[in-house]
Amino acid sequence: MAQPLPQIPGVRLAAVPAQIKNWQRDDLLLIEIAAGASVSATFTQNAFCAAPVLIAKEHIRGGDIRALLINAGNANAATGDRGLEDAKACCRGVAAALGVNPEQVLPFSTGVIGEHLPVQKILDGIPVAAHTLHADGWDIASKAIMTTDTRPKTACRTLDIAGETISIVGIAKGAGMIQPNMATMLAYVATDAAIPQPMLDQLVKEAVAESFNRISVDGDTSTNDACVLIASGATGELIADGQGEAYGLLKAAIVEVHIELAQAIVRDGEGATKFVTVQVNNAASSAEALRVAFEIGESPLVKTAMYASDPNWGRLIMAIGNAGVDNLDTGRVSVFLDDVQIVEAGGRAQGYTEEQGQKVFQQPDFTITVDLKRGNVSEHIWTCDFSHEYVTINAEYRT
Amino acid sequence: MAQPLPQIPGVRLAAVPAQIKNWQRDDLLLIEIAAGASVSATFTQNAFCAAPVLIAKEHIRGGDIRALLINAGNANAATGDRGLEDAKACCRGVAAALGVNPEQVLPFSTGVIGEHLPVQKILDGIPVAAHTLHADGWDIASKAIMTTDTRPKTACRTLDIAGETISIVGIAKGAGMIQPNMATMLAYVATDAAIPQPMLDQLVKEAVAESFNRISVDGDTSTNDACVLIASGATGELIADGQGEAYGLLKAAIVEVHIELAQAIVRDGEGATKFVTVQVNNAASSAEALRVAFEIGESPLVKTAMYASDPNWGRLIMAIGNAGVDNLDTGRVSVFLDDVQIVEAGGRAQGYTEEQGQKVFQQPDFTITVDLKRGNVSEHIWTCDFSHEYVTINAEYRT
Repeated sequence: MAQPLPQIPGVRLAAVPAQIKNWQRDDLLLIEIAAGASVSATFTQNAFCAAPVLIAKEHIRGGDIRALLINAGNANAATGDRGLEDAKACCRGVAAALGVNPEQVLPFSTGVIGEHLPVQKILDGIPVAAHTLHADGWDIASKAIMTTDTRPKTACRTLDIAGETISIVGIAKGAGMIQPNMATMLAYVATDAAIPQPMLDQLVKEAVAESFNRISVDGDTSTNDACVLIASGATGELIADGQGEAYGLLKAAIVEVHIELAQAIVRDGEGATKFVTVQVNNAASSAEALRVAFEIGESPLVKTAMYASDPNWGRLIMAIGNAGVDNLDTGRVSVFLDDVQIVEAGGRAQGYTEEQGQKVFQQPDFTITVDLKRGNVSEHIWTCDFSHEYVTINAEYRT
Repeated sequence: MAQPLPQIPGVRLAAVPAQIKNWQRDDLLLIEIAAGASVSATFTQNAFCAAPVLIAKEHIRGGDIRALLINAGNANAATGDRGLEDAKACCRGVAAALGVNPEQVLPFSTGVIGEHLPVQKILDGIPVAAHTLHADGWDIASKAIMTTDTRPKTACRTLDIAGETISIVGIAKGAGMIQPNMATMLAYVATDAAIPQPMLDQLVKEAVAESFNRISVDGDTSTNDACVLIASGATGELIADGQGEAYGLLKAAIVEVHIELAQAIVRDGEGATKFVTVQVNNAASSAEALRVAFEIGESPLVKTAMYASDPNWGRLIMAIGNAGVDNLDTGRVSVFLDDVQIVEAGGRAQGYTEEQGQKVFQQPDFTITVDLKRGNVSEHIWTCDFSHEYVTINAEYRT
């Protein structure tokens, strides 16, 4: 985070205080993308997806995206036909300010569900933002999209490809997946590399699968989640075939930026006091490995035990047993807490002492590793603990 | 609960303090069943099912069950081959004391996972229990099987069939599904009606589907869950065909006893302050109705909102949207809190005020009704809220 965020030639940003809520802070972010860039995105799977998500999905199908508009404080979700009209009005406002078509603008909103967007405040803010666009705006942007986040989330990488320096920068918001009424997770990643559209479409899917789809704070998915990947093409050769070493390096760096942002969301999970990696090895398939990992990572019983620094292995095997793995031979299952073996052959490991396990669980950051001994597939996810503070935040929010 | 529990001729009970843990209370329950009774049971689906569950499943396949032995304080789960031997030793102890075969005994354990059963203490307790068996033991029995339950759970019905009085009595333990390390839910229901084995096998499945499979405290399933239904046949005609009016009445009463016990578990859910029915109407299938109901009933965000008496409809539609209902037309979804409409056509209902919703959520007992307008199938579940006390209980347990 201390690392200064590089500029991405071809991308300019500006944030303004539009007073979408009664607060004193930037809450409207405009991102301008130069002509010729490729833009890809993934969106929430929730059936109640928000109006801006519906509009953004429609616009991105048309291609040639030239701007993103993001507001915090209001999700424009469950707002019916008026919500759609409001999102379109915002796109028209950006189009007028930047001289592009409304269909070249992607709208995003995050905040309270079920209240209508204060469209006029946004329309008033857009021209101000359009006049202050600058390439150095990533840090300010990361703060403008925050809701209950306790800190901004940014990540970046630079690498040399064919003698040219390529940069990747990303910002995200989300204090866990746990605030669907704060409708919840947004991430924007940009690189100045030139990546053709079909390859970028594939890359954003892969990067999200390795990052945001592997985190859980409480298993809920919001109505507004979105992740956007921009390749401005301002620097670097066109990476056309997706095969070469250069593309491999670029892809790895882009995935790393996504992972760093995803982990930052878990670390900032509401009430979270621990960051826990759940690693499942030797599964028969990726699907069953992820099921076991999420069953552990989402069990309130396991998460309260993490909070209490209580290496409660009964709860761990309960969660493994509930993952619906066909014909699981429980007698072959091992579990490790960092490098301490706690479960061996489905029972308490020989020589394991409570003190060893407690020492691991007392750390702010540790790994639970499950070995299913059924195949050779490994998967991992990241999760956090479940604290008193979580209940307080979610019981008191909005009241 | 104030209702005195009737005797079930053909079933005698005794509880003794075997000191399975370092406590002063009955913790070992023996239930003797007269020859000729039918006994059926359902067991946990958790892959890590406990040693007594494995033995009980094996024994019940042989039929002609004559006794149940239940201990609290130790689950005999994740205890490997020695756990199986320990459970068998307990069955042999009961067989010797009652003059039956070990295979005619079903063992059950509830308590901490992963510690070996104190078999000698149990073997010492069995003869004492065998000498004090009596038909009036149901109230005492309901207390002996408690772990962190704050109160015993009992239910009974009597009805007249063909001029004879038939009784049904049931006991259960479980402070929520939320304590798999206290391995968790046990229920025993007995009637003096005569019900043939195949019909009883069907009946216990149906009764559990209507009761214990419709409750959630946190969505976790324990290693030791079991529900046993006994038809002693001491009273009443043999109800042979399952078709007549008499069987219909009996079945309804037996299901009612199961439902009353299941609801008692939710009401005693750890830290629970509210009892909430989630009703889903006009679904296309039973499966999708239950998915929507459980998505609401298990969402930590919805449950913390219940705790806070906050009618947070954004969280409700988020949960509905996450239930994976194919092609859900969100614009047709309605939600009611008791008789207050909060969501209409997928958005905030016209005329709804926050005060109306809050008034419903402030009650200790209310219903959330979702209308999907997709078909004509309705389902319901029962759940509770998620409080600070839940985190405290589960974070501090065992420490």
